[in-house]
Amino acid sequence: MPSYTAPVKDQMFVLHDVLKIAEQDVPGYDELDRETTEAILGEAAKLAQDVLAPLNPVGDHEGCTLENGVVRTPTGFRAAFDQVRDGGWTALDCDPEYGGQGLPYLISTAVGEMFSAANMAFNMYQGLTHGAYNAIHAHGSDDQKRTYLPKMVTCEWGGTMNLTEPHCGTDLGLIRTKAVPNGDGSYAISGQKIWISAGEHDMCDNIIHLVLAKLPDAPEGVKGISLFIVPKFLVNEDGSLGARNSLSCGGLEKKMGIHGNATCVMNYDGATGFLVGEAHKGMRAMFTMMNEARLGVGLQGYAQGEVAYQNALGFARDRLQGRDVTGVKNPGGAADPIIVHPDVRRNLMDQKAFVEGARAFTFWGASLIDRAHRNEDAAAEGLISLMTPVLKGFLTDKGFETTVLAQQTLGGSGFTREWGLEQFVRDARITMIYEGTNGIQSLDLVGRKLGQDGGKHVMAFFEMVKSFVSENKGDAEFDAQFLEPLKAASKDLQAAGMYFMQNGMKNPNNALSGSYDFMHLFGHVCLGLMWARMAQAARAKLAEGAGDAAFYETKIATGRYYMARQLPMTATHLARIQSGAEPVMALDAANF
Amino acid sequence: MPSYTAPVKDQMFVLHDVLKIAEQDVPGYDELDRETTEAILGEAAKLAQDVLAPLNPVGDHEGCTLENGVVRTPTGFRAAFDQVRDGGWTALDCDPEYGGQGLPYLISTAVGEMFSAANMAFNMYQGLTHGAYNAIHAHGSDDQKRTYLPKMVTCEWGGTMNLTEPHCGTDLGLIRTKAVPNGDGSYAISGQKIWISAGEHDMCDNIIHLVLAKLPDAPEGVKGISLFIVPKFLVNEDGSLGARNSLSCGGLEKKMGIHGNATCVMNYDGATGFLVGEAHKGMRAMFTMMNEARLGVGLQGYAQGEVAYQNALGFARDRLQGRDVTGVKNPGGAADPIIVHPDVRRNLMDQKAFVEGARAFTFWGASLIDRAHRNEDAAAEGLISLMTPVLKGFLTDKGFETTVLAQQTLGGSGFTREWGLEQFVRDARITMIYEGTNGIQSLDLVGRKLGQDGGKHVMAFFEMVKSFVSENKGDAEFDAQFLEPLKAASKDLQAAGMYFMQNGMKNPNNALSGSYDFMHLFGHVCLGLMWARMAQAARAKLAEGAGDAAFYETKIATGRYYMARQLPMTATHLARIQSGAEPVMALDAANF
Repeated sequence: MPSYTAPVKDQMFVLHDVLKIAEQDVPGYDELDRETTEAILGEAAKLAQDVLAPLNPVGDHEGCTLENGVVRTPTGFRAAFDQVRDGGWTALDCDPEYGGQGLPYLISTAVGEMFSAANMAFNMYQGLTHGAYNAIHAHGSDDQKRTYLPKMVTCEWGGTMNLTEPHCGTDLGLIRTKAVPNGDGSYAISGQKIWISAGEHDMCDNIIHLVLAKLPDAPEGVKGISLFIVPKFLVNEDGSLGARNSLSCGGLEKKMGIHGNATCVMNYDGATGFLVGEAHKGMRAMFTMMNEARLGVGLQGYAQGEVAYQNALGFARDRLQGRDVTGVKNPGGAADPIIVHPDVRRNLMDQKAFVEGARAFTFWGASLIDRAHRNEDAAAEGLISLMTPVLKGFLTDKGFETTVLAQQTLGGSGFTREWGLEQFVRDARITMIYEGTNGIQSLDLVGRKLGQDGGKHVMAFFEMVKSFVSENKGDAEFDAQFLEPLKAASKDLQAAGMYFMQNGMKNPNNALSGSYDFMHLFGHVCLGLMWARMAQAARAKLAEGAGDAAFYETKIATGRYYMARQLPMTATHLARIQSGAEPVMALDAANF
Repeated sequence: MPSYTAPVKDQMFVLHDVLKIAEQDVPGYDELDRETTEAILGEAAKLAQDVLAPLNPVGDHEGCTLENGVVRTPTGFRAAFDQVRDGGWTALDCDPEYGGQGLPYLISTAVGEMFSAANMAFNMYQGLTHGAYNAIHAHGSDDQKRTYLPKMVTCEWGGTMNLTEPHCGTDLGLIRTKAVPNGDGSYAISGQKIWISAGEHDMCDNIIHLVLAKLPDAPEGVKGISLFIVPKFLVNEDGSLGARNSLSCGGLEKKMGIHGNATCVMNYDGATGFLVGEAHKGMRAMFTMMNEARLGVGLQGYAQGEVAYQNALGFARDRLQGRDVTGVKNPGGAADPIIVHPDVRRNLMDQKAFVEGARAFTFWGASLIDRAHRNEDAAAEGLISLMTPVLKGFLTDKGFETTVLAQQTLGGSGFTREWGLEQFVRDARITMIYEGTNGIQSLDLVGRKLGQDGGKHVMAFFEMVKSFVSENKGDAEFDAQFLEPLKAASKDLQAAGMYFMQNGMKNPNNALSGSYDFMHLFGHVCLGLMWARMAQAARAKLAEGAGDAAFYETKIATGRYYMARQLPMTATHLARIQSGAEPVMALDAANF
């Protein structure tokens, strides 16, 4: 069975030595001194390691079952969910007005990484509830907030997001679910929604569905979509549960992974719903917290990479096969551990360098979200909006790739259920698809975000890279190993943006054909920047003679690996982008 | 449910227009005129499409079961196997002396692609038997050949390869299975073997296990391994089945994919075995047909890519989401088919360009094997030995990647069991692992093959590229689109080889750290060469005014895509290689 150890030390390094959160002027960060942070992370780590991780294979093997409309979650899930609730983990960054702890989003991101790495399918029940909480918090009436939020903060009630229908997912303008006014302020919701994660299950007393539907007078397309609260059980004036609503789970999807999470077909048969926010403005309401939701999926991607990497590393240290060509390392044994072999190293270093870079990138993104919300900082809001598709698309593609690399480290054992690596691969795969496929992320990036507000956010990013370089140059080794590669990669990114500007006007397909490569190119530059920042922070710690020199030296060496072995990929992405639309669009659809 | 259409037309193009097999001086190729080839491929296509493909999801969902030592294959497998046997498909390239048809290996490769794409788990039963047939054919005594081969040619009897033990796979020098002489010329074989594909099942009357074991006086390591025939049922003098041998299936592995194939733990408990070839020369005997076996796995990789691509393409043509930004394409519908979108195109073109290139590369490799065997051509033998790790490693990595791309084309549907794409991903994954992990392939390439015979085979490859360029240059468009990119990629490959020569002597890790990138760099150059050859062949067909111009124009456009969008990857591989061992080996094993 696979194991998981929460990377508290590395999280602490990113939070306090790289992002230096205690020195930031973000309201709430002042509470996050080292001791407090470490205490929170330490408690979360125990829960993740001891309770959630052991249930991960159980959830995968048993899956969920549907019988007479009731969905049963795997053995142990319910008790574990009680522990998560009782520990207050569902309320971390929620509004104190509704029972939340009001901590920064950043800290709940760090905890979320652990829970997600330990048991992604399990943690989704909480994650989706949080998403629904966010939407109601931002757009619900005071009455709706008072009615639903306190129980959602504690996860006594679950929450879901109902977007997709059988004939449409990405193109939500095509949805057919109808909302007809009942005359009493409520609406009768009818239609079928599919792929509803946690749509029905046995871990909560009630489930608050957020459903996109069209009013009778709705304009065509996405401008005619409204958002409704449709509770499984209607809620009485006094907050007690009333009648069962006319909605049901019509089936569970059989799928590649995340078996522990119930992916439901939801049928709404004149179910009573309540409009959230304004009529026809449902898309905006549903997507208010899109940056958070998508960052959360990017996090899932690298979190699966992290746990997969840990198990690959353990295997590589234990498994004895062959001898180090430069000299026997384990003379007492029949062979050397496979970690001595360069190609096994390459594989492990790819995993390690990605996961640690991704953690820094994600935490930085979460800190921008905090700054945007808590300081009402428009620049931070613009920057995180730009970064969101990169965080989601790049980190899930590479996170999945990392699970595949980790599986490869184990050879044949990686293919067997027993070792658990294959589950990480299957679970990670969904992150590239849901919350907007990665292709859609790349369109959002190139088609919307890049030019947003006159392109000033991408300019701010380039400025940030430039400042970092100029502020930290002067050490020949650091310059050569970190700053020069970062500058080169950033230049490739600028050249790609320039290509879009010069060629996208005459034919938008010249930009759209390169959008996916651009997203990856951008992701590499971001991880390059993160590695340069982490190496710089590690050098500072070494210079001040902080203990644990091996940790900081390892950090620098891992960064060097990323710069030397991963960052050169930007040149290939640029070459692909600059080949334009012609090779991509040359064929008639009939001639494929 | 997914569908499969055998790519007969594209296979015919590669065989007759690119490789021009009917004009080759290889014995047996003279029988392969267009009509004969097309008739064989057409019959194989029917079987693959109508019989094997529909059983593919059945095999995945049911899997194999073990009860009281008996392994049952999924519903329908046995009847289908009878059809394969009855059609003579198991005997295609077998020796006529033992009932085979004596056709070239190339034609059985083309048929193998279809069967493997249609149902990989199923086709492995035949494939492993063929591997065992090959080993006995090459190294068995005349008596052994007469006893076992005729029934193996027809697959009335199955065959297996028993190498791996719980504590060793790659490093076979560590095996513990013992062979003790019985005094009558036979041996008592005792030990446990794991991951034995088709080790026990209900589709054959007997199973002929080939088992690696050590004699009592065996030298240490791989030089002390001998190969034994260990039949499930001993065979009487008259060829009838005798006593049940002391061997049994101790368990079935639960695994990520290929559920329809029984992956067995095999226990040998003093089982009667017969030495094949010389004592202590078992490794050589087992690996005699390694080029074929590994090419066969590379074929499985791209074959899964092919069937996945076909289903992705079908989905992209049917699914209506969004509108073409350059103008509505389906005004009568609620949206345009997603194939209009550039990023969907990019995804499909990556799949198509890889699969077609891989087919040409594999068929070329198979033709080299024919030439090596049938013409006893040492140059062909040397070249295919060099190419084998590239064929296996590159085509399975990229084949798997292609199934993932195809799955992505389907969005959420790709994650569900219903559409079948996720099975292709899970099945393809094993090809990167078995028959030597791809890491091992890269070591074989850089550590052994590259310098073999003084490096003359790689020089021959470069010469081949150079000749092709000089013989076909002169057309400005073809030069720019095909020859120049091919030259650039080939130059990168030469530079990588040069780096190894100059830096591998002082530290072998400088070469070994770059072995995986070198394998991929080599793979890209090979596919670049294949695409240049295919484009050249298509241009010739267009010039002579052959019908079906759209097919040839599509071929050229697809090649252009590969050259513009995939081949630039060689630069990144070179940059990684040239960064050497330092970043890869920097960390102490304890500091990961």
